[in-house]
Amino acid sequence: MKDKRILTGETISVNIGKIRVGGDHPPIYIAGPCSVESKEQIMEAAFALKEIGVDVLRGGAFKPRTSPYAFQGLGIQALEYLKEAGEAAGLPIVTELMDEGHMDVVMEYADIIQVGSRNMFNYSLLKTLGGLNKPILLKRGMCATIQEWIMAAEYLALHGNKRIILCERGIRSFDNYTRNTLDLAAVPIMQKETGLPVIVDPSHGTGIKELVAPMSRAALACGADGLMIEVHPDPPCALSDGHQSLTFEEYSRVRKNV
Amino acid sequence: MKDKRILTGETISVNIGKIRVGGDHPPIYIAGPCSVESKEQIMEAAFALKEIGVDVLRGGAFKPRTSPYAFQGLGIQALEYLKEAGEAAGLPIVTELMDEGHMDVVMEYADIIQVGSRNMFNYSLLKTLGGLNKPILLKRGMCATIQEWIMAAEYLALHGNKRIILCERGIRSFDNYTRNTLDLAAVPIMQKETGLPVIVDPSHGTGIKELVAPMSRAALACGADGLMIEVHPDPPCALSDGHQSLTFEEYSRVRKNV
Amino acid sequence: MKDKRILTGETISVNIGKIRVGGDHPPIYIAGPCSVESKEQIMEAAFALKEIGVDVLRGGAFKPRTSPYAFQGLGIQALEYLKEAGEAAGLPIVTELMDEGHMDVVMEYADIIQVGSRNMFNYSLLKTLGGLNKPILLKRGMCATIQEWIMAAEYLALHGNKRIILCERGIRSFDNYTRNTLDLAAVPIMQKETGLPVIVDPSHGTGIKELVAPMSRAALACGADGLMIEVHPDPPCALSDGHQSLTFEEYSRVRKNV
Amino acid sequence: MKDKRILTGETISVNIGKIRVGGDHPPIYIAGPCSVESKEQIMEAAFALKEIGVDVLRGGAFKPRTSPYAFQGLGIQALEYLKEAGEAAGLPIVTELMDEGHMDVVMEYADIIQVGSRNMFNYSLLKTLGGLNKPILLKRGMCATIQEWIMAAEYLALHGNKRIILCERGIRSFDNYTRNTLDLAAVPIMQKETGLPVIVDPSHGTGIKELVAPMSRAALACGADGLMIEVHPDPPCALSDGHQSLTFEEYSRVRKNV
Repeated sequence: MKDKRILTGETISVNIGKIRVGGDHPPIYIAGPCSVESKEQIMEAAFALKEIGVDVLRGGAFKPRTSPYAFQGLGIQALEYLKEAGEAAGLPIVTELMDEGHMDVVMEYADIIQVGSRNMFNYSLLKTLGGLNKPILLKRGMCATIQEWIMAAEYLALHGNKRIILCERGIRSFDNYTRNTLDLAAVPIMQKETGLPVIVDPSHGTGIKELVAPMSRAALACGADGLMIEVHPDPPCALSDGHQSLTFEEYSRVRKNV
Repeated sequence: MKDKRILTGETISVNIGKIRVGGDHPPIYIAGPCSVESKEQIMEAAFALKEIGVDVLRGGAFKPRTSPYAFQGLGIQALEYLKEAGEAAGLPIVTELMDEGHMDVVMEYADIIQVGSRNMFNYSLLKTLGGLNKPILLKRGMCATIQEWIMAAEYLALHGNKRIILCERGIRSFDNYTRNTLDLAAVPIMQKETGLPVIVDPSHGTGIKELVAPMSRAALACGADGLMIEVHPDPPCALSDGHQSLTFEEYSRVRKNV
Repeated sequence: MKDKRILTGETISVNIGKIRVGGDHPPIYIAGPCSVESKEQIMEAAFALKEIGVDVLRGGAFKPRTSPYAFQGLGIQALEYLKEAGEAAGLPIVTELMDEGHMDVVMEYADIIQVGSRNMFNYSLLKTLGGLNKPILLKRGMCATIQEWIMAAEYLALHGNKRIILCERGIRSFDNYTRNTLDLAAVPIMQKETGLPVIVDPSHGTGIKELVAPMSRAALACGADGLMIEVHPDPPCALSDGHQSLTFEEYSRVRKNV
Repeated sequence: MKDKRILTGETISVNIGKIRVGGDHPPIYIAGPCSVESKEQIMEAAFALKEIGVDVLRGGAFKPRTSPYAFQGLGIQALEYLKEAGEAAGLPIVTELMDEGHMDVVMEYADIIQVGSRNMFNYSLLKTLGGLNKPILLKRGMCATIQEWIMAAEYLALHGNKRIILCERGIRSFDNYTRNTLDLAAVPIMQKETGLPVIVDPSHGTGIKELVAPMSRAALACGADGLMIEVHPDPPCALSDGHQSLTFEEYSRVRKNV
């Protein structure tokens, strides 16, 4: 199969403005709240994280929630807040695209477009994103095999877009002590198979804030090209994922000690 | 959580033209090839299956394939062939919608719109389909928990569409002897939790044609409201899923002996 | 691999006294409490179950409990009670052997020796049991692949004992709505691969008493050679597995309606 | 549940002769071949590994093999070779006990007794080992939840033996690219929950020799108290697990770079 692939394992590094990810470049640090909840919240986060040494600001505008009764995100308004905060603090931004109907607005605002875990198998979306000239953060599906994840990246590459950053975020297993089972072996495997940068999301990968620090160290130790971590000004009041979000102070310690 | 739900467990039966599924109605039989491959193929299938006693004709137009290099379906042309075959043989048709961009044409042609396993977590798609007055065949995600599957149905119901037929099609497990692990306990569970009809797809649920007959009997024995089975005029030559497809003769025996 | 096997798929039926299991013989019904709790309890169960039409009485003497602080079974005394009850009611008995140190006493009392799910990979135990002339009920390990289960049976057969009854009892998956995921496709698969009788335990396979009836019907519909079901005189007071145990009356309905 | 436990999370370090594992002690390095195959092989391994800086020599005498037709280990003779090699090179030894019938001879020869993954649920064995004054290396069951692994350690502790070293060795998941899914989050979790030392086995945890180095670094980065790695004088000729075994030279590089 491999000889048919576009992503042959040859190293591909991805640029986001002046930042470069992958290959021999230093790890990239992406952080921010699960959801953009207000202008004040994301503005505060942007400045605090910039000072701590973050490279890219994350924040959810459209949230894929298991329950239709849960908070679904502020939508386009969230994108505007996120863009404004990123520009004010001097940070590029990443956000998830769930719906091709929002393509234009996400293209306009986001510096990196995230394909979430629930959409890794959404081949229509992948084909469309394959036609763009914009970096794509391709999260692993929660039950995607290595082979399926490689093929999802091939969908993007075959349609023309090789500006792909892969993100291991935990897979589903029989155990429910952690939210997901963080599969760090996927980091060197995917780097070797595709040549693409692979970052790790220990927040979703464990779902437990105390595990973010040790799993961040482990991720970088096995060669991850970056970390994406959920940080919130006030985790207990977060509208989503508060239990796995760090405070600025906690994140600052993680950032220093990896 | 249950008291918030729209689908409370009260029995809901779904009509497709004159056919009714769910509640005390007899099982519904859906069959057809994985992909519509030509006008001749689907026309032959439609007439043969009608004679065997099928209620609904299935056929894929847009195929969600793991590899971008695999056959992706004939697209809109397939829909036209499928509709023509269904009308000629007097069978309503079901096909999968992967992309909201194809909504209009699928709405025009299909009698039931299928949400495939890879799109069960595609909440944008579910919200859109929730706004239609058209039966939805909601397949279980390959790693969806019972709770997540219930919530996917709630997405449809909350947006206004309760014409939902659930389909158990196997989940992912550690074993790879079968393509998936058919979780038949999900049939009585989902019937009780949602009140909706639940059908079973033993073709994808096992991936082995010899297992289609015993698993079809088991599905009906535990109360399934119908069966969806892959049948192809010439399985060894099928462009997709040939190994799990039955011939007309094999299907006829299954149909008689359930 | 198959050509090396002793169990080649040729039908093997197993006799327990005058009862024969497997091949074209009618299904065997095994029932009884999870644990033998007192002489009165097991005696009451034996007579009630005999009247309902049970073929073999089950009851645990040595219990493999996840927690060392949970009830561990009455041990040898339980075996004595179980044997006495079985003889009084005219029922052969099956009980689990966990420890080779109890081999002599279990050999003396039991008509069938059960290898529990947690011991399917205990190859020392399998080798020892392979040397006996006594029927073995080999439960599938909770995470055993089909291939591993076949090989566990081969351990018994290679050491001389082909009096093997296989028991599907559910496997571990990512979902926890049910205690285990009952893998009914394993019934026809294991029958074909080994030729041995395969029975189903819907009590452990689901962990939910309301699912025992539909899953029993499904098991027989796909060809199971018997059913093993937990029944207790007073489930809410059971020392173990009360939530999945049926009353005599509930079991009687299951027995009549399969 | 936690308040009933003996292992409360208070740090317990374990001594093997002069070596101490756990707490603030430096990581312990355990290495050796999967199976003891001959006196020459294990003797060569012992001296080579001692020079590279190994603390404990491993080698299998009784091998739990999926197939009864696979090499089952040299048994007691292997123990004698292993002991002789360990003494000659000045290394304590660890080996797996599968069968209580071998308890005396294993007690005599081994410095650490290993409970393999397939026996973590063997509560009879755990109770017996709980009565010994000998360090136990308790591998995680391949489908054991965190809670079940904690309880297996409690079985040992409740019966009197707290000289326990836990070993994460990968769990079973839906993916088969790697032999197992190495669950490194289990390292900080089990340390916190039990207070015991937790080591990691990246050889079984991945099954791919190229992944041993990055996963070893990741394991130590998240706080593992040691590493157990398969090393063989001539991996392609190994009687078991050759594909995941390192040469002395490869191991030497891993040892220097963690």
